Amino acid sequence: MSTRLPLLLPLACSLALASFAASGHAQEDVDNAPAPSVQELLDASPPSDWRTPDPEHTLYMELEGGRVVIELAPEFAPAHVANIRTLAREGFWDGLAIYRAQDNFVVQFGDPSEDEDKRKPLGSARTALPAEFERTGDGLGFTALPDPDGWSHQAGFVDGFPAARAADGTTWLVHCYGMVGAGRGMEPDSSTGAELYVVIGQAPRQLDRNITVVGRVIDGIGLLSAIPRGPEPMGVYEDAGRHVPIHSVRLASDLPPGARSDIELLRTDSRTFAAVTEARRNRRDDWYHVPAGHIDLCNVPLPGRKANR
Amino acid sequence: MSTRLPLLLPLACSLALASFAASGHAQEDVDNAPAPSVQELLDASPPSDWRTPDPEHTLYMELEGGRVVIELAPEFAPAHVANIRTLAREGFWDGLAIYRAQDNFVVQFGDPSEDEDKRKPLGSARTALPAEFERTGDGLGFTALPDPDGWSHQAGFVDGFPAARAADGTTWLVHCYGMVGAGRGMEPDSSTGAELYVVIGQAPRQLDRNITVVGRVIDGIGLLSAIPRGPEPMGVYEDAGRHVPIHSVRLASDLPPGARSDIELLRTDSRTFAAVTEARRNRRDDWYHVPAGHIDLCNVPLPGRKANR
Repeated sequence: MSTRLPLLLPLACSLALASFAASGHAQEDVDNAPAPSVQELLDASPPSDWRTPDPEHTLYMELEGGRVVIELAPEFAPAHVANIRTLAREGFWDGLAIYRAQDNFVVQFGDPSEDEDKRKPLGSARTALPAEFERTGDGLGFTALPDPDGWSHQAGFVDGFPAARAADGTTWLVHCYGMVGAGRGMEPDSSTGAELYVVIGQAPRQLDRNITVVGRVIDGIGLLSAIPRGPEPMGVYEDAGRHVPIHSVRLASDLPPGARSDIELLRTDSRTFAAVTEARRNRRDDWYHVPAGHIDLCNVPLPGRKANR
Repeated sequence: MSTRLPLLLPLACSLALASFAASGHAQEDVDNAPAPSVQELLDASPPSDWRTPDPEHTLYMELEGGRVVIELAPEFAPAHVANIRTLAREGFWDGLAIYRAQDNFVVQFGDPSEDEDKRKPLGSARTALPAEFERTGDGLGFTALPDPDGWSHQAGFVDGFPAARAADGTTWLVHCYGMVGAGRGMEPDSSTGAELYVVIGQAPRQLDRNITVVGRVIDGIGLLSAIPRGPEPMGVYEDAGRHVPIHSVRLASDLPPGARSDIELLRTDSRTFAAVTEARRNRRDDWYHVPAGHIDLCNVPLPGRKANR
C-alpha cells in the first residue's frame, strides 16, 4: 500500500445523508450505510444547485502565471464594490503589482509606492469610502452551520460567502482563506478599495468587523498563495524587482463572453452543499479512524466547476 | 495616512495585562490603560521564558532556497521520531524531493517514485510502525486555553506544540499551520516517517487522531508554503522537473555547533506566552475597532528568536 494514499482527502470524503444535522462529539451512532463521496454528491447535484457569478461583480486579475478570479460582495460592501468596479474599468491596477506576501497571512496588491505623492491617481473613483465592516441581517438569506463558532454568535453562509452574525442579526463576512479585503489606515473609513489583500493562511478572524471585506477568490488562488514570501515582519518587498506585476484587472462583464472563465459555484443554500458540508464534518470513508464531529466555517469547501457550454 | 498600515498586525497588537483570563464576547469592559505590544512583551521576557529545542530532536532540511527547521515531538510519536532520526542519520532524504504542494492543505516530501519497487530502501529504519495518533495525558504538562474548541474537549499546548485533549485526558497533537505529520496508507499502522507532510493552509483538523503528527516547522516555513502548487486534485507533480530537490535532512546534533540554527522558542507554559496570547485574543491598539474576544488554538503565535551567542 502506497504511503501517499493518506492525503487523498478531496476524493475520499463521504457522508451519511441521514445525519445532516448531527454535530457535537458523539460519534457512536454512526450510520454505517454506504455513503456517497463528495464527488458523487456533486455529480448527482441538480443544475439548480449551481449558480454563475454575476459578471458585473466578477474581477479577472491577469498575472504572468494566469488568471485569478474574484467574486465581489455588493451586499456587504456596496460602496467598496462600486469603487472597485470603477477602478477596474479605468485600468487602475494595470501595471501595478503584488508587493506583499506575508506567510500564513496575506498577499496584498495595488500601488507599491511608499511616497503617497507618487501614487497612481484613482481616476474617477472615490478617494474616501465609509467603513463597511458589517451590516444588518435584514434581507439576507443566512444559511447557518449547526457547529459552534468561537468568534461569533453563529457562523454560516450568505450568497456563497462565509459569514457570521451576532445575536442581534448584525452580519459580516469572515476572513477565511481566499477572502479579499480592502486595506485601510488607522481610520476606519480610510480604505478606497485600491489596495486589496487576499488571505493565504490560517483564517485571521481577528480582522472580522475591523476592515471591509469585499469578496472572495473563486479561481486561481494558487497563483497568489505560492508567491515567495517577502521579508519579515510584514512580507513587503522593498525591492521592486521582486514584485509580481499585474497585467490587468478587469470586470468579467467588460470581456467578450468567449474570453470569460466559465465558472459555476455550488449554491450555499442548496441541499447538495449541506450534504458536502456533512461529508467533510464526519468523514465516513475507510481511511478515517475518527470522524471529527465538527467543522469550522473556514474548513467548509466552496465547490466550483467549469460550466458546460 | 498610508493605506498599507492596516496589516501591521505582528507589530501592532497589544494587551491589557489585567485581563488574561477574559474571554467570551463581552468587550465593553475593556481596560483602557496603555497596554504593551507583543514585541514589548517579548523584549521584557526573562531568559527563563525561553527554551532551546533539543538538537537530538531537531531536523534541518536543506533546500536550494535555504534551511527548514523542524522540531520533533518524541513525547507524542516516540516510534516515528526514532525512525525519523535513523532516516536522517543515514541520509535517507538526501537527493529525494518535495513532490506535492496542494493549495490550502499540505506539501509532502520523500521518495516520489510511483513504483514501490523503485523506492529508496529505508536502511536500518523500521518498515512498519505503530499508529501514534494520540496518547494518555499522564505525565504531560498541558497548558489549556480558556477558549472553547469545536474539535475537542480542550485545546492548549504541550512542550511548545499545539495540542488538544478529550475529557478522559487522551491528548493529541493538532494539525495547525506548520505541523508535520507522517503520511500513511489505508492501515493506521502503515506509516514509517519516510513520507512527511507539512500543513500550509487552514488547519485540517479532521486529520487529528487519524494520522501520526511528528513535529512542527519552527523556521523556514516560507520555503515550503511558497512552492508552486501542483495539479489538482492532490497537488502531486508527476513531472519530476517540478519537484523541489532536497539537498539533505540532518539532525542538528550531527552538525557542529557553529553550523546550527540558534533558535530559541518561547515556552508555552510561561507567563509571557499567556500575555502574548491575550494580546492576540483581544487587540488593544488603536487600529482595532472590535477586539475579537476569542482566539483559536491555531491562531496563537509561537514566538521564536535567534539566540544571542
